Parts: sequence; structure tokens; C-alpha cells
Amino acid sequence: MTELNGVLAKADQTLDAALERLFALVRIPSISTDPAYKEACRKAGQWLVDDLSGLGFTARLHDTPGHPMVVAHHDGARPDAPHVLFYGHYDVQPVDPLALWESDPFEPSIKELSPGRTVITGRGTSDDKGQLMTFVEACRAYKAVAGSLPCRVTILFEGEEESGSPSLKPFLDAHAEELKADYALVCDTGMWDRETPAISAGLRGLVGEEVTIIAADRDLHSGMFGGAAANPVHILAKILAGLHDETGRVTLPGFYDGVEETPSQIKASWESLGKTAESFLGEIGLSIPSGEKGRSVLELTWARPTAEVNGITGGYTGEGFKTVIAAKASAKISFRLVGKQDPDAIRSAFRDYVRSQLPADCSVEFHEHGGSPAIQLPYDSPVLTTAKTALSDEWPKPAVVIGMGGSIPIVGDFQSLLGMESLLVGFGLSDDRIHSPNEKYELQSFAKGIRSWIRILAALGAAKP
Amino acid sequence: MTELNGVLAKADQTLDAALERLFALVRIPSISTDPAYKEACRKAGQWLVDDLSGLGFTARLHDTPGHPMVVAHHDGARPDAPHVLFYGHYDVQPVDPLALWESDPFEPSIKELSPGRTVITGRGTSDDKGQLMTFVEACRAYKAVAGSLPCRVTILFEGEEESGSPSLKPFLDAHAEELKADYALVCDTGMWDRETPAISAGLRGLVGEEVTIIAADRDLHSGMFGGAAANPVHILAKILAGLHDETGRVTLPGFYDGVEETPSQIKASWESLGKTAESFLGEIGLSIPSGEKGRSVLELTWARPTAEVNGITGGYTGEGFKTVIAAKASAKISFRLVGKQDPDAIRSAFRDYVRSQLPADCSVEFHEHGGSPAIQLPYDSPVLTTAKTALSDEWPKPAVVIGMGGSIPIVGDFQSLLGMESLLVGFGLSDDRIHSPNEKYELQSFAKGIRSWIRILAALGAAKP
Repeated sequence: MTELNGVLAKADQTLDAALERLFALVRIPSISTDPAYKEACRKAGQWLVDDLSGLGFTARLHDTPGHPMVVAHHDGARPDAPHVLFYGHYDVQPVDPLALWESDPFEPSIKELSPGRTVITGRGTSDDKGQLMTFVEACRAYKAVAGSLPCRVTILFEGEEESGSPSLKPFLDAHAEELKADYALVCDTGMWDRETPAISAGLRGLVGEEVTIIAADRDLHSGMFGGAAANPVHILAKILAGLHDETGRVTLPGFYDGVEETPSQIKASWESLGKTAESFLGEIGLSIPSGEKGRSVLELTWARPTAEVNGITGGYTGEGFKTVIAAKASAKISFRLVGKQDPDAIRSAFRDYVRSQLPADCSVEFHEHGGSPAIQLPYDSPVLTTAKTALSDEWPKPAVVIGMGGSIPIVGDFQSLLGMESLLVGFGLSDDRIHSPNEKYELQSFAKGIRSWIRILAALGAAKP
Repeated sequence: MTELNGVLAKADQTLDAALERLFALVRIPSISTDPAYKEACRKAGQWLVDDLSGLGFTARLHDTPGHPMVVAHHDGARPDAPHVLFYGHYDVQPVDPLALWESDPFEPSIKELSPGRTVITGRGTSDDKGQLMTFVEACRAYKAVAGSLPCRVTILFEGEEESGSPSLKPFLDAHAEELKADYALVCDTGMWDRETPAISAGLRGLVGEEVTIIAADRDLHSGMFGGAAANPVHILAKILAGLHDETGRVTLPGFYDGVEETPSQIKASWESLGKTAESFLGEIGLSIPSGEKGRSVLELTWARPTAEVNGITGGYTGEGFKTVIAAKASAKISFRLVGKQDPDAIRSAFRDYVRSQLPADCSVEFHEHGGSPAIQLPYDSPVLTTAKTALSDEWPKPAVVIGMGGSIPIVGDFQSLLGMESLLVGFGLSDDRIHSPNEKYELQSFAKGIRSWIRILAALGAAKP
């Protein structure tokens, strides 16, 4: 029996004890956004420190202005073993409306949904306590069998992920030396489906802009001034309508600078996932892709940049009718970025375009709502290839390398503050009801998640440094 | 001394007593929108009934579901004298913020603003108690000197004008026979300037529409779906941006059917008023006309139709930012109509246009917010010509026939329910602060307003039936 097989077998044999530990962690109501649970958050952090210490980690609770950080270190079996930083979060979302829960959110239980499909219920089972414990249990099994870990491991668990991570950046800045590793492992994402593990290699960046068009110095009566006075809603509508051309492309000059075509083998692997426009959009009551023509919905949401209006307001918006010409109208617009698109350049191009559309007697105000570039783990990155093989060995179907339309700030922070790429692997499913009543985590996700991390740690540890 | 000169002299001699009567009416706080002043409204109506009865009118207070109507009748000197219906309203706007008033809104006073410029202060002095009393006092002077009136006069004073006139249409319907006259005289408008009286001959009509574009069946995360799912704000922006062409014309098919060019002599008289784009728009902080190119601001607002967005909303409009793609977005749009434009045809053309712009997987809902055609007293109408001469005799500068960009529902109701055209003459000034603290009415407006009605009544009475 190889060491790897021994460790996997150990994980299988000790699954019940691992579940008991997960239950103990889930029972601590660590709701970070509610001050009433401040002590519970600390208790969850301390529980993890104690558990990791028992495993042989050098673990510590670090105070922050908010909830404490858990940081733990363990050497690798070899001095030149790769060094990984594992990230997760021990805080959870609030549980209201409590009446909709079928059982106590903080009293986890095992339920059989259907033959062969067993789930662990409770707040945080999927997001993110169950996920982070897959890694902790993988380490435990390794230690039990091999007495050591194949990689040098640093663990960072935060307690504010569900409330905006206010302490995270300052903490990373202040502890950069202690936390920097060869790459980060982040376990806060999902599988493609129940049989197909996924690695999220691309995260779109984001530029948030708020634009306010100001015309007259007061709201006007549309009878007295309509037809002669500038209407800021018209100006804004024209600006927004001009952001896309007939083919769905964004019209800002230079917008596509730094956007590269996705490699054809990656596109082919996405095609093979069988996600059509009908199936993707059908879930939300739509059927026709609205963006750039000639691209699949997965490419549009994972690998292409966008300009989307997230909100617009101007004039009278209450019940009934008011014949007013507004003094101002405003919109919130976000640009999702891919590849090497430059957030600052795109913000500038947008502002230049808006100004070019503005009548000379009107003015404009801009408000910035954040900006971050896209993150892309190169498709030929060794850590990606290694993890993909390890995951494919564990699950019924080969792992797929996917993109994510949204942004995960921690990944950008690891990149910008610690100069570290992140491997995003997780075992959640889209129906886990995270942030909602009756959150669950599949027993299979937990059991095979532990086994997956064992395989990944083994493969990474065996790779040449 | 002619009879007319005698009546004019009488009005001048009795101005102080006329002011005392106006003061007595202003002291009654007839705020129609506030139930606390229900009795005060009735009291104001009764005051007018008593005053008109004292003048020899057959006057009566008519109960309605809201505040009562004052209806009064007086025969003309000749059996074949023309019959006029005079309209005004005795209710007033609320007075808050009370702290901004320099004196008690319901304790009128005379103030000299500058040498030669004296005003009457108090809520309702301009809108509309002072204005309606100019006509009552004209009748009084006529009766005092001639013992009769040159026209048969019916008076209608309502008490709900400032709260939407809910009882007016039913009342006109129920009393059509009693109220129908050869034409209506409406005193609720203003002068062109302090020296130039104005007759409002054109009133733009109105079509109000609310359109809601519905895309996905829920709000979406713009990261997960952005670039693939239809964004209703984009669709709405494109629809609104397409409503006008590059020359400022409305693009709806058939929109200009029934729109006639204003006679060149009328346009010339407007030009002579010296209202430039800079002076008209400068007051509201603008300078460049935004509507149809090549037309003056007065023509744009008095004699041309418009399409104006009065309100728009969609997605997240609160503080900060939310990366949402809204399920729906909506706008309120009003069309101002002129000439013989058909409100129903324009509503249909708009709805057809919106539907033509809609992606096949999205839907639209429309809500109607009223529709009324434009009103235009023909520029060669005898009553208009007669009144214009009478006003020009009284004031330093000749009367000007103007348009009004807004709608006055009563004028449409007189037209549609009683088949009667309206002559709109009033003596308010644009700085009278109606609806605001420190409302005033110029003493000159009151004194020469009385004299103006005397002249108009004389001229109308002398005209061949």
C-alpha cells in the first residue's frame, strides 16, 4: 500500500470522527455581521487554533479591530517542499428568517435526501466551515499515517468574510512575511456538478462607476420647459445606449486592449460541459444571450469583459405621475474585466466618452466604486495541471478548469499584496443554499473533498520544487 | 363721460374698499388639501356667495363630495347680450414651511417693495383669490355705475383646484345646462411681464405613459450573468435614446400628424418679446435649447410637441454599489401635444415602437397616465381679438397672444363637456411665489386687473351676438 493510499484509507476510516469535529464547529454560531455573536466568532477561531495545535501546527489567534484571524504553520516533510497558504473563513451568514429552517441551523444533522444522497445540514456547513475542514482533515489523515505533511502548510482562517473582510488587507500587509507562500489554496468555491470537480482559474476584475448628469439647477415643469430645456435622463439614456454596438461589443476606445482569446482547447472543454444558452438562461426565465454575438454563454460570463448598468434613477419614480424634468439623473455601471485590461484606463475611457456626449451647458459628476484587474491562473500553470490530475483521479469525471464571472477579493489581495497566485478548489454545489435557510453540504463533498486535498497535497509535495 | 369711463373711474375710487374685501377673503384659510381646513373652505365659498348675492347675482353654494362649488348668475343688460362663464378657485395651497413667511400668510398686508411697486402679501393673493376678485370687483363697479352688466354672467368658483379638482368633472356633467355659456373666461394665468398683458390661446395636450421592461425572472448577480443575460436598463436606455433623432425631432411614426406651423405673424410677435434661449434658459442654469433645431424657445415650449422622460428607475439606486442586473426597469414618459395630434394614436405609436425594440425573451408592461388633446383658441377668434384690444387699451404695452407649455385641465373640460372655448387672461407675475412662502400679488395687477375686466366686459357686451 502506498503512502497516498494509506492516507486515503485513513480518511475513510475516520470519517465519523471528522464529522463530529465539523459538527462541533458548526454548533458555534459565528455570525460575523451581528455584534451579538462577537464572542461566538472568537470561540470558533479558538476552536480552530486548538484543533490545529492538536495536529502539530503552531497555531495562534491574532486580534484585529474586528474578529480574530487564525494563523497556523506546519513544516513540510522535506525542507525543500513547496509552501502553500490555505485560506478559508470560519464566520457564517445570519440565519433569518429562522422560521424557514427545517431544523436548528446551529444543530447540524445528517439527512438522506434520496437514496445515496446524504447531506449535512446547518449554517456554515457549505460556506465555509465544511469546506475548510476538508483541508484540516486531509492534514490530520496525513499526519496520522505519515507523521508529516508533504508540503509546508500555512493556514489563514478569517472571521469577517461574510461582512466585507474589513481587517483582511491590513492584516495581510502587516503579516506579509509570515503568510507569503508559493501559492494559495482557496476552498470557498464549488464543483461543476455532482460528478465533476472544478478549478476556478479565471476571475473577472471589476470597475465600478457612478455617473450623474446635471442639467438645470432645479427640477423643471415639463410643460413650461419641455422641448427647450435639456433633460438629463435623455442624455444619460443616450450615453448608456451608446456603450454597446449592434454586435454587443463595448464601444469605449481601447476597451479590448489586453483581452486575449481563450485557448481553443479550453473553449472545447467548456463546450463539452453541455451548458447551452437555453439551459443557462432558462433557469432565470431568459433564452437569448444578450452580449457579444457568436460566443457561448460560458465564454461570455467567464472570459469576456462586460459593461452593465447596475442601477439608474432620475426624476419622479413614485406612484402615479409627475410631469417633471429632473435636474439630474444618475447610473451605476460596472465593467467586468478579463486578461490584462487596465481598470484605470477603462475608467478614463468611460469618463472621456461620457464627457464627449455631454451638452455644453450640462455637467457631470463621477464617483468611483472600486477597481481591480482580472485574475487569471495561466492555463499551463504547473499547480493547475497538478491539481487537475489529482482531482480527476478522485472523482467520477475529469476536473474542468472554469472561469468565474464574479470577483473574489481575497484572490486579488493575495496577488497584489503577497505576490501569490491562488488555486481555487471547492466542493460546494449550486443547490447548497448558502446564505439561505436550510444550508447543507453533501456528505460526498465532505468525504471526497478530504480525499481530494490529500491527493493534491501529495501531488504538490511530490512535484519538483 | 362714457359709461366705460365712468365704470373705470368708479373702480379707481373704490379700490380701498375692494382691497378690504380681498383681505377678508384672504383671511379665510381655505387650504383644500388639508382636512383640518374643511370648514374654512366652506366659509370662503359662503363668503363669495354672500358677496355675489349682495351684488345682485343669484348665487348658491353647491355641495360636492369634496369642497362646495360657488355658482352665481346675473343677466346681461340686453337679452341678446353674450353669455360668459367666469371661472376661478377660492382654495389655496398649504403654507408650510411657515417659518419662511415674513408675515402671517392669512393676515394680508400692503408692502412697498420699491418706489412705485406695491404688493399685497398673503396666501392666495395671486393664486387665485386676488385674480378672481378682479372680475367680481369689475362687476361691482359696473353695477354701481350702470345698474347692470354688459354681458350675461355666470360665475363658477371651485374649492378643489389645488387638490386635483376631483369634483369638477362630475359637477360640470351634472350642471351642464346651467353652466354652458358662449365662452369661458378663466383668470388663473399671468402677464407676459409687468407692462405687457397676455392672453393664453394655446395649451399643449398631454399623453402620460409608464413603461416597464421585464427581463429575467429575478435580479441577477452581474458577475455570474453579466454579458449573457438581458439587462432591462440597457433595453430601456436604447428605447429612450431612440425617441429623438439628431435634429431633436420625435421619431415615432405619425407623431407630427396634426401638427401645424404657427402663423408667421404670431411667430413674429413672439420674436418681438425678446425672449432668447439665453434669457429663457439662463434662469434655470442652462443656455442651449435641447429640442427641435431651428425653432425659438417660445415656439418649442408653446407650439411644438415633445417627448420627455419624467422619471426612470431600475436596479440598485441606493448608497454605494451593488453588482446587480435588475429583473425590470421602468420609465414614465409624457408627450406634450399641439394642434390636432391624437393622444390615442400617439400612445399606440409609442407602444408599437417599444415592442419593436424588445428582445424576444423579454416582455413589457404599459400603464396609462392620462391623455388629452391640445387646446387652441384660433388666432383669429373674435373673442380673442376683442380681448386683445381691450387689454392693450389698459396697459402700457399691447397684449400678446401666447401659448402655454403646460395643461390646464379645466380648459379641456370646458371644451369637451360644455363645448365651450376659453379665454385665459390673468394678471399674475412670474415672481408672485404662488405655492411658496411669501406669496404676493401686485397692487397694480389687482387695480388694473379690475379695469381690464371692465374693458373686456364692455367690449364683449358691445360686440354683435
